[in-house]
Amino acid sequence: MIKAGIVGGTGYTGVELLRLLALHPSVEVSVVTSRADAGQRVADTYPNLRGFNELSFVEPNVENLKDCDIVFFATPNAIAMHMVKKLLSLNIKVIDLSADFRFKDVAQWEHWYGTKHACPELLSQAVYGLPEMNRAEIKSAQLVANPGCYPTATQLGFLPLIKAGVIDTSMLIADAKSGVSGAGRSASVVGLMSESGESFKAYGVPGHRHLPEISQGLALANDAPVSLTFTPHLVPMIRGIHATLYARLTTKDVDLQALFEEYYINEKFVDVMPAGSHPDTGDVRGTNRCQIAVHQPQDGDVVTVLAVIDNLVKGASGQALHNMNIMFGLEEDAGLNHVGLYP
Amino acid sequence: MIKAGIVGGTGYTGVELLRLLALHPSVEVSVVTSRADAGQRVADTYPNLRGFNELSFVEPNVENLKDCDIVFFATPNAIAMHMVKKLLSLNIKVIDLSADFRFKDVAQWEHWYGTKHACPELLSQAVYGLPEMNRAEIKSAQLVANPGCYPTATQLGFLPLIKAGVIDTSMLIADAKSGVSGAGRSASVVGLMSESGESFKAYGVPGHRHLPEISQGLALANDAPVSLTFTPHLVPMIRGIHATLYARLTTKDVDLQALFEEYYINEKFVDVMPAGSHPDTGDVRGTNRCQIAVHQPQDGDVVTVLAVIDNLVKGASGQALHNMNIMFGLEEDAGLNHVGLYP
Amino acid sequence: MIKAGIVGGTGYTGVELLRLLALHPSVEVSVVTSRADAGQRVADTYPNLRGFNELSFVEPNVENLKDCDIVFFATPNAIAMHMVKKLLSLNIKVIDLSADFRFKDVAQWEHWYGTKHACPELLSQAVYGLPEMNRAEIKSAQLVANPGCYPTATQLGFLPLIKAGVIDTSMLIADAKSGVSGAGRSASVVGLMSESGESFKAYGVPGHRHLPEISQGLALANDAPVSLTFTPHLVPMIRGIHATLYARLTTKDVDLQALFEEYYINEKFVDVMPAGSHPDTGDVRGTNRCQIAVHQPQDGDVVTVLAVIDNLVKGASGQALHNMNIMFGLEEDAGLNHVGLYP
Amino acid sequence: MIKAGIVGGTGYTGVELLRLLALHPSVEVSVVTSRADAGQRVADTYPNLRGFNELSFVEPNVENLKDCDIVFFATPNAIAMHMVKKLLSLNIKVIDLSADFRFKDVAQWEHWYGTKHACPELLSQAVYGLPEMNRAEIKSAQLVANPGCYPTATQLGFLPLIKAGVIDTSMLIADAKSGVSGAGRSASVVGLMSESGESFKAYGVPGHRHLPEISQGLALANDAPVSLTFTPHLVPMIRGIHATLYARLTTKDVDLQALFEEYYINEKFVDVMPAGSHPDTGDVRGTNRCQIAVHQPQDGDVVTVLAVIDNLVKGASGQALHNMNIMFGLEEDAGLNHVGLYP
Repeated sequence: MIKAGIVGGTGYTGVELLRLLALHPSVEVSVVTSRADAGQRVADTYPNLRGFNELSFVEPNVENLKDCDIVFFATPNAIAMHMVKKLLSLNIKVIDLSADFRFKDVAQWEHWYGTKHACPELLSQAVYGLPEMNRAEIKSAQLVANPGCYPTATQLGFLPLIKAGVIDTSMLIADAKSGVSGAGRSASVVGLMSESGESFKAYGVPGHRHLPEISQGLALANDAPVSLTFTPHLVPMIRGIHATLYARLTTKDVDLQALFEEYYINEKFVDVMPAGSHPDTGDVRGTNRCQIAVHQPQDGDVVTVLAVIDNLVKGASGQALHNMNIMFGLEEDAGLNHVGLYP
Repeated sequence: MIKAGIVGGTGYTGVELLRLLALHPSVEVSVVTSRADAGQRVADTYPNLRGFNELSFVEPNVENLKDCDIVFFATPNAIAMHMVKKLLSLNIKVIDLSADFRFKDVAQWEHWYGTKHACPELLSQAVYGLPEMNRAEIKSAQLVANPGCYPTATQLGFLPLIKAGVIDTSMLIADAKSGVSGAGRSASVVGLMSESGESFKAYGVPGHRHLPEISQGLALANDAPVSLTFTPHLVPMIRGIHATLYARLTTKDVDLQALFEEYYINEKFVDVMPAGSHPDTGDVRGTNRCQIAVHQPQDGDVVTVLAVIDNLVKGASGQALHNMNIMFGLEEDAGLNHVGLYP
Repeated sequence: MIKAGIVGGTGYTGVELLRLLALHPSVEVSVVTSRADAGQRVADTYPNLRGFNELSFVEPNVENLKDCDIVFFATPNAIAMHMVKKLLSLNIKVIDLSADFRFKDVAQWEHWYGTKHACPELLSQAVYGLPEMNRAEIKSAQLVANPGCYPTATQLGFLPLIKAGVIDTSMLIADAKSGVSGAGRSASVVGLMSESGESFKAYGVPGHRHLPEISQGLALANDAPVSLTFTPHLVPMIRGIHATLYARLTTKDVDLQALFEEYYINEKFVDVMPAGSHPDTGDVRGTNRCQIAVHQPQDGDVVTVLAVIDNLVKGASGQALHNMNIMFGLEEDAGLNHVGLYP
Repeated sequence: MIKAGIVGGTGYTGVELLRLLALHPSVEVSVVTSRADAGQRVADTYPNLRGFNELSFVEPNVENLKDCDIVFFATPNAIAMHMVKKLLSLNIKVIDLSADFRFKDVAQWEHWYGTKHACPELLSQAVYGLPEMNRAEIKSAQLVANPGCYPTATQLGFLPLIKAGVIDTSMLIADAKSGVSGAGRSASVVGLMSESGESFKAYGVPGHRHLPEISQGLALANDAPVSLTFTPHLVPMIRGIHATLYARLTTKDVDLQALFEEYYINEKFVDVMPAGSHPDTGDVRGTNRCQIAVHQPQDGDVVTVLAVIDNLVKGASGQALHNMNIMFGLEEDAGLNHVGLYP
């Protein structure tokens, strides 16, 4: 069995890794760290794991992780960058679910994350872990930067259009909506159900950290910069992201449905819905699947893409497992074969 | 006291009219009709009205309504058009909350509503009841076509920009989100909480009836056609609409915040939020208020407008009362002076 | 105008007082304190109050409150007890929405609230502000201890039965359910929508502070101790309390429906529903009303009472206004005449 | 592979059977019937099943089911009783998720279900499929009556106490709460999110069909009748049941925690939580697990039991699979090994 360690096991992406790995056929979780809960049994903190996990949280340090084959960082930003180098030197593979290694440009990272990067020399070797984009590099990667939740849905939705060169990339609109679990499991007023239930609002309109992450990926695909307006919104539900994407078509001579179906034909976790569909976050709940539909309303010159994911699975922990499966040469869907929990 | 009749008192806009009118200082509800519930006490159907309404539902016919000073139609589409003419001939003012009289072009109406219009000769005299746009005409109107919920939020958001001539109207994007009460109080599977709770999805992307209504209003303001892409979404909450609007600026030489503040300076029910704000549907719950914010992300060439309303109040019954107040020369906020029910 | 001060204006009961008082015909809020937000505009913190409140928060001290006619404490427990004495000495009436003055027995208070009482000498003069129980004393009170939310619903449900002497008070069951706003507006993990949405659980089963408060009231009504089992639960909604109450009838010779109707015949804010009803928290949302139904399932010897309130109104701030109206000889429903916000 | 048929595949218990069976190692679904949707692809109706189910719905008749090894009825009540006899005669095992075969007393069934029973002669041979109660009989059963959702949680909570003879069975209280999926997937007004969201209410207080089902089971365990008051409530969430149970202890000489732990020590799907726990429906979401805690508040003479299940899994389709596994001699948890989907 592959031995996995999880650093930061008390956040939602951490517990979701534990849920998914509990039933993975080739991997066992051998270490779960938590500074705050060290010494406590994991299943006491998370009663859904009773019977599936007998570990106790330990302190997050390299000594505790040294026997792992792979370590996942499910930590806040700016934590992993302090530990990754040492782990790699011990020949341990690392998947970082935080943002520390997602940017190629350290200055940009430091601008958006407001702190000095502790380990910029690893940025070039880190592979951005969107399998549908970078499968080959992931296969041989030692360090994978797992994408953000919004960037996953948004890039999957725009990629076929950009690669086909059929849209005007000078005005891309990504109107994205997320369930509240995206904000994590930290005490806050804004996350209270009294605040976020029965309400809907945008946030971060002047600038959100996922904007440069998405732009970087789309520019790479485009071989040229793109101009993106990105508006995240908070939805009164727990799991799910819905990205509604708009762009102006530069040609009318394109079968958008066929374009998307062909682009993702070999992708297990991207499901292009039939023409005319409206994907629902509820249908991918608990799964690593992205369901996508493409529309050309009134046969006009605007293309509208609808893409849904579960932010904690395809938008975080499930995608991390997918990356792990690729890195270790396992079946890509090992431990990820789930039917959406509907209703 | 002004005597008001409500046709179709068992839907959400009907019961919301009853809630608001129950405490209106100058109006009393004298008739409430319902074909299905005729004979039943209103307060038995709606326990929130116990003590505020002693009426029983009666059959919807002109005879029952003939002593009213004003009649509200809170009916499904294609009902009001069969009764309005007779009511007007009795010198009764009419406010239609359905779509029957919203379009100027009967062919377009028949296309989108899929039936023959029973009373096209009244379309030209009907006044589109968006007070911030048509106050003068509403004042002297006998027949007011109350706007749809999405059209209210969307037009209020785009109007200042279009009137100022600062955006490219060849690609307007309205990404709109509505709570589930917008679908009304009819038995359905799609409206079940098991279906619409904990989920988020778009609908009507190929074409929604509010698209031509919005386009008509914006084109009028623009003195030229506009090209709009409109995407409605269903939010797992009961009340509220959030419109996120995008357009390309044709000039950088405009103070957007000042533009909006000045445009709405005399409007009691449109509240332009401070620069940088993100309005929340929860703050206008139960009120006739539209809260708006305008952004220019990264000082780029895209303007993003955020507008929220309560779909049942400013998006329907509250706006109908506002229109009534104007038609009868009452204080505009009579019966509409509410603080948002937060949390 | 009566001048009201609010100490602790940034919690949910504080902002609810502001919402209700904003439209009270005889009262104006002249001071709102908040230690954390002093200097900030109230309407900036609470956008629902924009246009209704021009105040800024000030520091909570007696100097700032000295010109008030009445002061409301919307503070956490164990705050009011340090300030009340001084305010009373200035001839300012006080309504404390916290628990500081609810108990007659200081030892019991100190046991359940885990701290020394700063002002035990006022406990005997404080009047427990449940108007349906203590109207006469409230009229002449200087200091009112506003009841807790669960105690309001539970006592209103049991009172008619206990006063009539028709139930066995040696085994009373109160199975109570509350929306999440009851937990207040403090940053917490347990209150996150990700935790409390789409879930249901009991809490405080071994012992909750509202148990002794309810027992005290019921024992007073009973002229003898009662034995109560009280189980609070958390419901994934924002506002509302539903108390389901059980007791064994000691006689079959009682018309329970008539008993309840007569008991509350003069009470504006207690609405006894028709026989067979199931009151819904949604029908009293935003109002000061308690709707009650009484059942005797299968004509057996168990009586089941269902009582619903809005925890922030009848369970807190609305009841405080009701008490204020009584204390100042105003109409009891001044500022409290609302129709439930359904749906 | 065992061939399974599902009659009534378009309700929530039907689609949940499809979700669970899609990944069962020894069973394949070979037939799914639906009168309304016959001819339509299952995965078109349920996009969560895309890629997991290639079947189309067929008409519900014996001919279509004749090659099955087992047939599940996920139909409304009073349907299965017309088809079961024929299926049994073809040597097909049957598990009925509806109520048709749950009662031993046909008169009682006809009273509560308001219709004549079409097949009373099978009532005696039908085995009530609560494995923790009837495992041995289930093993050899041809026809299993799968328990209702409330009865599952309520009986599991009361059984250890009744079997141990430590409670007064003349006054049992079951205060039960269910998510809205319990009402099924039929168009209705009461099930609309606008009605059932943000609200809480009891229903069926005068008498609910699950009352006699629970009483039958508890009386059997008690070897004597019991007297139960049962109050179901509707919770604004999709999945989950929470039963809060009360009884008077007839002895103080009992270690309740040990009693429960021992009673369920060999049960894979009943998890007795540590002393002092408050189980949460969210921790069993999507799983076949019942989590239970037992309390004796203030060391008094009332025992309070808290039991949670997912109504669609342990309360319906998961329990049906559990029964199937027992009937076919498979591992009891085959296809049922899930970690709760938290958050």
